[in-house]
Amino acid sequence: MREVAVLGIGQTSVDEHWDKSIRMLAGEAVLAALQDAGRDTADVLYVGNMMSGNASRQQHLGAMVADWVGMRYCEAFKLESACGSGAAAFRAGMMAVASGEVESAVVVGVEKMTDSPGSEMTAALATAADADWEADMGVSFVALNALIMQRYMHEYGWKHADFAAFSINAHANAVHNPFARLQDAVTEAEYARAHMIADPINLLDASPMGDGAAAAVLVPARTVRSSGKPVIKIAGSGSATDTIAIHSRRDALWLSAAERSARQVYQQAGVEPQDIDVFEAHDAFTIMAALSLEACGFAERGQGPRLALDGEILPSGRVPIATRGGLKARGHPVGATGMYQLVEVVQQLRGEAGSTQVDGARVGMAQNIGGSGSNIVTHILRTE
Amino acid sequence: MREVAVLGIGQTSVDEHWDKSIRMLAGEAVLAALQDAGRDTADVLYVGNMMSGNASRQQHLGAMVADWVGMRYCEAFKLESACGSGAAAFRAGMMAVASGEVESAVVVGVEKMTDSPGSEMTAALATAADADWEADMGVSFVALNALIMQRYMHEYGWKHADFAAFSINAHANAVHNPFARLQDAVTEAEYARAHMIADPINLLDASPMGDGAAAAVLVPARTVRSSGKPVIKIAGSGSATDTIAIHSRRDALWLSAAERSARQVYQQAGVEPQDIDVFEAHDAFTIMAALSLEACGFAERGQGPRLALDGEILPSGRVPIATRGGLKARGHPVGATGMYQLVEVVQQLRGEAGSTQVDGARVGMAQNIGGSGSNIVTHILRTE
Repeated sequence: MREVAVLGIGQTSVDEHWDKSIRMLAGEAVLAALQDAGRDTADVLYVGNMMSGNASRQQHLGAMVADWVGMRYCEAFKLESACGSGAAAFRAGMMAVASGEVESAVVVGVEKMTDSPGSEMTAALATAADADWEADMGVSFVALNALIMQRYMHEYGWKHADFAAFSINAHANAVHNPFARLQDAVTEAEYARAHMIADPINLLDASPMGDGAAAAVLVPARTVRSSGKPVIKIAGSGSATDTIAIHSRRDALWLSAAERSARQVYQQAGVEPQDIDVFEAHDAFTIMAALSLEACGFAERGQGPRLALDGEILPSGRVPIATRGGLKARGHPVGATGMYQLVEVVQQLRGEAGSTQVDGARVGMAQNIGGSGSNIVTHILRTE
Repeated sequence: MREVAVLGIGQTSVDEHWDKSIRMLAGEAVLAALQDAGRDTADVLYVGNMMSGNASRQQHLGAMVADWVGMRYCEAFKLESACGSGAAAFRAGMMAVASGEVESAVVVGVEKMTDSPGSEMTAALATAADADWEADMGVSFVALNALIMQRYMHEYGWKHADFAAFSINAHANAVHNPFARLQDAVTEAEYARAHMIADPINLLDASPMGDGAAAAVLVPARTVRSSGKPVIKIAGSGSATDTIAIHSRRDALWLSAAERSARQVYQQAGVEPQDIDVFEAHDAFTIMAALSLEACGFAERGQGPRLALDGEILPSGRVPIATRGGLKARGHPVGATGMYQLVEVVQQLRGEAGSTQVDGARVGMAQNIGGSGSNIVTHILRTE
């Protein structure tokens, strides 16, 4: 396999884009990425998306977006793995270029959620759970995560307040990201009195839905080298699954798929957790940030919140996460999220992250989680 | 890129499988393919599916099917490109193995349609059309194809009866395929008096919906060689798109994406149309069979029906199509169809097609169409 690098990135703001259809959103991100790459087109286009069939009555986004951005006739597919769809599409693009089958790929994650009634989106999100054994029992996606968080607090003795630092860091960083959905800082007191959604998950534990799209242009690393632009290589790409139904797992408090995919990328990149300068974790809920940090080897089992409490997850800390706001405050347009994470890691490695820039960031990791840990795709990007 | 070959195939019957959930259907085909390959597992699993989010309230089929077939923890994604989803997944599996990223891939196309009310499925199928410019105007998928067929007849002077031979051939072949949905022969008289759906498309022009799954195990060609089994190589894999909305095309009667993807595979495989021994075309409607034959170079523009009228599409003819019943009579479980076509081509190349075996078949082609020609994936398989 030949080395693949990111040549361009683009994104829309995460917002309630009532004036833009799903093709317009995806198109905006794709064209921004192509412009950033100095290209007019790419050989293939892969779309990461979860729920356009429900939310926009539109499947078949590959052909649709290709036509819209002036890439009519090119190869184009959609990849879906629930909230992990974005990174799945990125991985497909990486493999297409790595295989030598194509010389360039543009990958876009897109989701449009706010045009539909909330109840419909709650039902659509529940299609990421096990329809027969979870959703059919009436359990929503937040409720599933609440069960995990409840058990985690019971098992390891954490209080709800101990998770506040995850939310506070994400919101503080989002203030400086013009693309973020919630650009406002929050305090410990606000966290404590936020509305309860599904005990113990309250409004400030949970990421907001939104409409948005983020994209990247992938080419062989040698193509970037000869262009004179900074070379940001895909040093590792890992992917693993677990049972969808949480009750079927050996350990509901351990993200096996995160551990497996992280191990794959560490090995491919030849690095250890301590070599990661910035980590865009999948903090759909504060508990997921904690579990992700543990499974990837940044914290001992049951000790994820300690990192947050000690300030180690801040941009100045040992393991900076949610540096552009994370899912919590940048927003979580589900099928787009994985691509936002990767775009943000590229911003960090290029030194374009402004007030939340991680000093001297050279190795960045992004981890995209589908379902409650059932499909996890991890990437390591590295400057050359 | 290294050469990739098909080591094993499996399929369920296309039927109203009210007693089987979507994971059970997919699992049955995957396990049959693994057994045929003499394997317990594969490195990755890709699922081709279009509408499980609507029909089964279940997205995230990758992780779900992987767990169900005993491949928990492996990489698994779903690919979607409307009715072209099956071949899209096959192509993703091919690239994963070709890239060297994995040593084996199992690919399954699956769709479950008959548990939902027909009106709901008609609406779900319409998500393959352009939501803003086609579906929103109330046009169904059959209606779109009826418009094309109407224009085709007007333009080239064909009568409706001239399309009967496509349907008669498909049904005659399905009689000998135990997996086919409609295992009964039809006559010219029956074709003429079949119920009208959307003029000029009647019930015997249109393929039936159904539940079903078909799967294949892909490995490097050298792995098959060393196993002593027959080597069926993927000699060509091509993919192209066109506008989704038919009114945006330069020519509504020409499948540009079929022409483009066919040219790609002819070039890769180093063959011409006349070298193809068997061609599993996407005969969702009789008009699509005609257009596909023309775009792939088997007939002159506007002359597709002539091949059928002359008996050239029969198993004994020059361009045998629908040799196991095609979409028309084997059935069209949309996201699974592309994989059924490929499995059937493998059956032909192995000489396992029974009464509808094409004598001495060594080069087979399968063409899977998403939308009314908007996403087309073509493969050529060849015995070594």
